Amino acid sequence: MRHILIIGAGKSTGVLVDYLLKKSEEENLKLLIADKNIDQAKLLSQNHKNADAVELDIFNEDQRRAYVQKASIVISMLPARFHIEVARDCITYDKSMVTASYVSSEMQALDEEAIKKNLIFMNEIGVDPGIDHMSAMQVLDRIRAKGGKILLFESFTGGLVAPENDDNLWNYKFTWNPRNVVTAGQGGAAKFIQEGQYKYIPYHKLFRRTEFLDVDGYGRFEAYANRNSLKYRSVYGLDDILTLYRGTMRRVGFSKAWNMFVQLGMTDDTYVIEDSENMSYRDFVNSFLPYSPTDSAELKMRHILKIDQDDIMWDKLVELDLFNATKKVELKEATPAKILQKILEDSWTLQTGEKDMIVMYHKFGYELDGHKKQIDSTMVCLGDGEMQTAMAKTVGLPVAIAALKILNGEINTPGVQIPITAPIYEPILKELEDYGIRFRESEMEYLGYNPLSL
Amino acid sequence: MRHILIIGAGKSTGVLVDYLLKKSEEENLKLLIADKNIDQAKLLSQNHKNADAVELDIFNEDQRRAYVQKASIVISMLPARFHIEVARDCITYDKSMVTASYVSSEMQALDEEAIKKNLIFMNEIGVDPGIDHMSAMQVLDRIRAKGGKILLFESFTGGLVAPENDDNLWNYKFTWNPRNVVTAGQGGAAKFIQEGQYKYIPYHKLFRRTEFLDVDGYGRFEAYANRNSLKYRSVYGLDDILTLYRGTMRRVGFSKAWNMFVQLGMTDDTYVIEDSENMSYRDFVNSFLPYSPTDSAELKMRHILKIDQDDIMWDKLVELDLFNATKKVELKEATPAKILQKILEDSWTLQTGEKDMIVMYHKFGYELDGHKKQIDSTMVCLGDGEMQTAMAKTVGLPVAIAALKILNGEINTPGVQIPITAPIYEPILKELEDYGIRFRESEMEYLGYNPLSL
Repeated sequence: MRHILIIGAGKSTGVLVDYLLKKSEEENLKLLIADKNIDQAKLLSQNHKNADAVELDIFNEDQRRAYVQKASIVISMLPARFHIEVARDCITYDKSMVTASYVSSEMQALDEEAIKKNLIFMNEIGVDPGIDHMSAMQVLDRIRAKGGKILLFESFTGGLVAPENDDNLWNYKFTWNPRNVVTAGQGGAAKFIQEGQYKYIPYHKLFRRTEFLDVDGYGRFEAYANRNSLKYRSVYGLDDILTLYRGTMRRVGFSKAWNMFVQLGMTDDTYVIEDSENMSYRDFVNSFLPYSPTDSAELKMRHILKIDQDDIMWDKLVELDLFNATKKVELKEATPAKILQKILEDSWTLQTGEKDMIVMYHKFGYELDGHKKQIDSTMVCLGDGEMQTAMAKTVGLPVAIAALKILNGEINTPGVQIPITAPIYEPILKELEDYGIRFRESEMEYLGYNPLSL
Repeated sequence: MRHILIIGAGKSTGVLVDYLLKKSEEENLKLLIADKNIDQAKLLSQNHKNADAVELDIFNEDQRRAYVQKASIVISMLPARFHIEVARDCITYDKSMVTASYVSSEMQALDEEAIKKNLIFMNEIGVDPGIDHMSAMQVLDRIRAKGGKILLFESFTGGLVAPENDDNLWNYKFTWNPRNVVTAGQGGAAKFIQEGQYKYIPYHKLFRRTEFLDVDGYGRFEAYANRNSLKYRSVYGLDDILTLYRGTMRRVGFSKAWNMFVQLGMTDDTYVIEDSENMSYRDFVNSFLPYSPTDSAELKMRHILKIDQDDIMWDKLVELDLFNATKKVELKEATPAKILQKILEDSWTLQTGEKDMIVMYHKFGYELDGHKKQIDSTMVCLGDGEMQTAMAKTVGLPVAIAALKILNGEINTPGVQIPITAPIYEPILKELEDYGIRFRESEMEYLGYNPLSL
């Protein structure tokens, strides 16, 4: 038997465990699911004979090391900041490791030792980062193999509510960490490059500089720019690319409406609101509006945001019960962002039986034999209920597939890495198709930014 | 002879030295002006028999201590972050000290020792902070002495160009540190209290939430909120005040125009622009505008900022030569704020012979014997040429007056302090009147925020 230690029984771990348990007989796998919450670990182990659940406090070094030492490979599904403890143990006991998280500088620092010990530390192999890397590199490498020169790469991902449950005015529900949604885009200007020109968008303009994207069968989406579109420029081999842009997808109208919160200052996470605990939702709104002894919060809001009487933007605010004078915030020393998150969670929490959706859209512009061409590649993954959400599938499956392929020696390049080479992405993308995670491509003349060609 | 050590021969030191030299005979004063730039120190010493100039590197501890030891009192006109070194020496050698800067936590930490040694560490005795403290406390104490209850305190200060040289479309020129002007309001939401309600303004809305102020003989001004209006709430004894607001004064229209830079992201000081050194002013502008192969930076700018053809806002941008494609930024690894500062300095630098102006406006609302009343108190100080700017006078004079009064034992309360008690502010404000720095008061019914009383 090969032992797979899975640390962290969070949202995506169920799909991952499912995948490995289904293969456990033919592959001789024995899973050890470790979490600080033993009940959660037990739930995922499904009383399967090839799965054990144990309680693990990640800061209990002896216990953690004992489990790592016994494993054939380690999968860390912990919050990103905790991976490094596990990673150091893996170095100590000569174990390979898989995570879905961004490579931290501490993780990167283990590269040399990992290579020396012939260990594989595979990271960023969830959905974003993960499937985005693999699907993009597959097309980029194919174009380059033909002798094409890449002119443009744009890449967009969104975690959204599935169309069948898309029933509020925002066309949005929380399908992952709400906090990341509320604070998205903060911490500096968005930076990207268009036709060779560096462009910068300040946070307070981010949600008004969106572009539209159409996905066959799913209609129109919009996207706002990620903080740093240039992060993978060198990694993808695109140092001389003219246009490089990464963004987050939402349904049309979301960003313009979200911008209302940004403009009011409600997404700020850097200071605490006075007496937040005892304020009503209406008090919260009022703290961002000028004082008036006579005018209502409603009229002040319409005025400051320039919302006409017949503008649906207004109904989006009302739908959130933002002006309720009796509902209390009930959060001590909360930032505006925390309070807004709570208000939104009242309305945007996915209900039992509701499904989520992951959408990905890549655009590749290139020049080949003197012709400019474009490939658009899209992927839509729908959730199948509570344990099999689209997010859990697109994160958990590539992690599980990668772990097994490392165990089987099919992936065998040592070091701290992300899945951007053909020997890694080809078999994983192929297997993901069996689970409905599949990209559809369309080819066209290069559209670029020249309106004369439109 | 009493020796006054003056460290830092900066912009305000000239006025300060002048004041003390004029009194040097009758008061038996000998000044030692120390600066890392000996020429600057010499210039200020005017070859006066009671003034010596020396070169001093503030980080040369032995030298610094030797001068402190010889002094009767020390005035530090250094940049604020350097005061603490001098302050510690003053503790060592039992010297009192005066600065125009905010009390740092390190400075505050010396309070106990200063009291124990009966030393006076007077801070925040320039214009803002300084004259604002003194003039506000004088009125607040007077109202309270009569039994009045303070309902509202609003306080505004502006450093502006004098009316006779107010000849650009922004009605603004740099009269002090340009960097502080470019980054004003950054680092968090503005916070204040209006009629008992806490209010927060995010940075990107700050310059659109201004209010107007009229000053007799000088016309209309506007003011935007300072970061933290509540900083002196307890210090001024206003813990239960309903309205407390502090702001910065500009000429009408400045803030709305400045908001264009804020909206574009040009005031951001948190990241570096790619290849800033080689870009033109026009390139800089373009980096905040969407890419277009055909449309001009001008039209994109008008579009994104919604500037109509007949809007004077446009002319304010053109006046700054912002669209110049040949003028280079020539600053390495510069933030947007640094680049904008350079562009503005081309246009807004005070020329030889041009004069500045300091404007201060306090509003006091109070209730006395069942009646609500208001006192408005204003001060305008005009510069008298290059060495006697309004800024230098309003900073240098109170520092000089305070130093002499400490030396003469007229100010004798020990400890780290700011000028908010009558024995300190009364004589200083009185003497400042001899130099034309005088407040004019008008009384009226309390206006507050009730439109029915307007």
